[in-house]
Amino acid sequence: MAQAIQVNLVNAVRVHDTSPQYRQLVDRLRQNDNLLAALTAADLNIANLLPCEAAAVTRNGEAASTAGELDYLALQLAETLLDTGDQEQVCIQRAAEGREAREDDTFCSVLAVRFSPSEAGWLLWFRKQDASSGDQTRWTDADIAVAQRLRVDLLEICLAQATAAREAHTQAVRRLAHDLSTPLQTLDMSASMLKVQDERNTDLKQHMVDAIAQLRQRVEQVQQLGRGKLP
Amino acid sequence: MAQAIQVNLVNAVRVHDTSPQYRQLVDRLRQNDNLLAALTAADLNIANLLPCEAAAVTRNGEAASTAGELDYLALQLAETLLDTGDQEQVCIQRAAEGREAREDDTFCSVLAVRFSPSEAGWLLWFRKQDASSGDQTRWTDADIAVAQRLRVDLLEICLAQATAAREAHTQAVRRLAHDLSTPLQTLDMSASMLKVQDERNTDLKQHMVDAIAQLRQRVEQVQQLGRGKLP
Repeated sequence: MAQAIQVNLVNAVRVHDTSPQYRQLVDRLRQNDNLLAALTAADLNIANLLPCEAAAVTRNGEAASTAGELDYLALQLAETLLDTGDQEQVCIQRAAEGREAREDDTFCSVLAVRFSPSEAGWLLWFRKQDASSGDQTRWTDADIAVAQRLRVDLLEICLAQATAAREAHTQAVRRLAHDLSTPLQTLDMSASMLKVQDERNTDLKQHMVDAIAQLRQRVEQVQQLGRGKLP
Repeated sequence: MAQAIQVNLVNAVRVHDTSPQYRQLVDRLRQNDNLLAALTAADLNIANLLPCEAAAVTRNGEAASTAGELDYLALQLAETLLDTGDQEQVCIQRAAEGREAREDDTFCSVLAVRFSPSEAGWLLWFRKQDASSGDQTRWTDADIAVAQRLRVDLLEICLAQATAAREAHTQAVRRLAHDLSTPLQTLDMSASMLKVQDERNTDLKQHMVDAIAQLRQRVEQVQQLGRGKLP
């Protein structure tokens, strides 16, 4: 009945052209459940994508960076950035006034791009102060375009992982619901066949029958959850 | 101990400026669990964002459109578009060669933007053929920028919803695991207190004790699932 639609794709484009390194990194991210580790791996990482000295990533209160000492700084920045509300990308100049200078103060210019607002997920690129050239710490439109592009690819990857995780979780619930009902049935049958005479055993049997009914009701709720219905 | 980082946000921008209508629509999407309905509501919908005659959206094999007769066409297009693989946005000229003309053939130019690859989620805008002007069916860079912008906002919304749904699901599992263990404990105690003499009751008691041990093991698996561990 249904006739296939004839379409001519007159214009099918990706938003930006990307470097081979970029595509290799994104391919790795797609195949890796540990995004933080894959984004900051020693041989290929997000610091390779932009001219910078180091890079870091945060998500759900965890951080990873291409330079170990940056994890703490990245988490503090992500916390600060949460307060900026609706911003998707920010360029930051850090000021160290009013306190002792620290090792990580040298990373004075930061490009931060949010990839998961609900998980405080941020990509962060760091540049060092270069006394010989005042403009070294500025981020160009091209830098921001690459960062923005990675943000969108990461969003898609996170969404695909969340969808897959949810499906795996629901399947596990369905399997468990099934596994619970088998012994419950045995129990139900055995209890009903039990011959009791004295008062003590009669009471115990009644307790068991009641508990089995309660269990049955709750196993049904597990079954419903496995069909995607929240009880 | 930890000293707050001083930051100056020298440049905090959103990628594109957006219209009040756009922001209103995105606000609604954030508050609405039914994305398909919210994207195609009668009073404010995605067709209002671009110069076009109608718009549609697909996700997980479902479709909604601002013009009823487009649902079927949108689903067919989404299916065709899946084959285009890595493309994020496509502009389509439809050809009706080799078959009878149909009502929806008049929607001959389509801008399609993918927002959820794992769920076959596509945004589709439709334009009609205008005989008086050959260029009416082309999509401009500004059109594509708006579509692209909505795609990213939708991705964020879908990710936030998936994360929230997963958390709600895990919480329900934790609650059910707890609810299962209470009657199971009653059952365990009652069965162990049962005084049996004849062979029949002794067998039944043993069946029950075995079934209770099996149930206990499976309730423990439900508990583990509630802590995020797949069994």
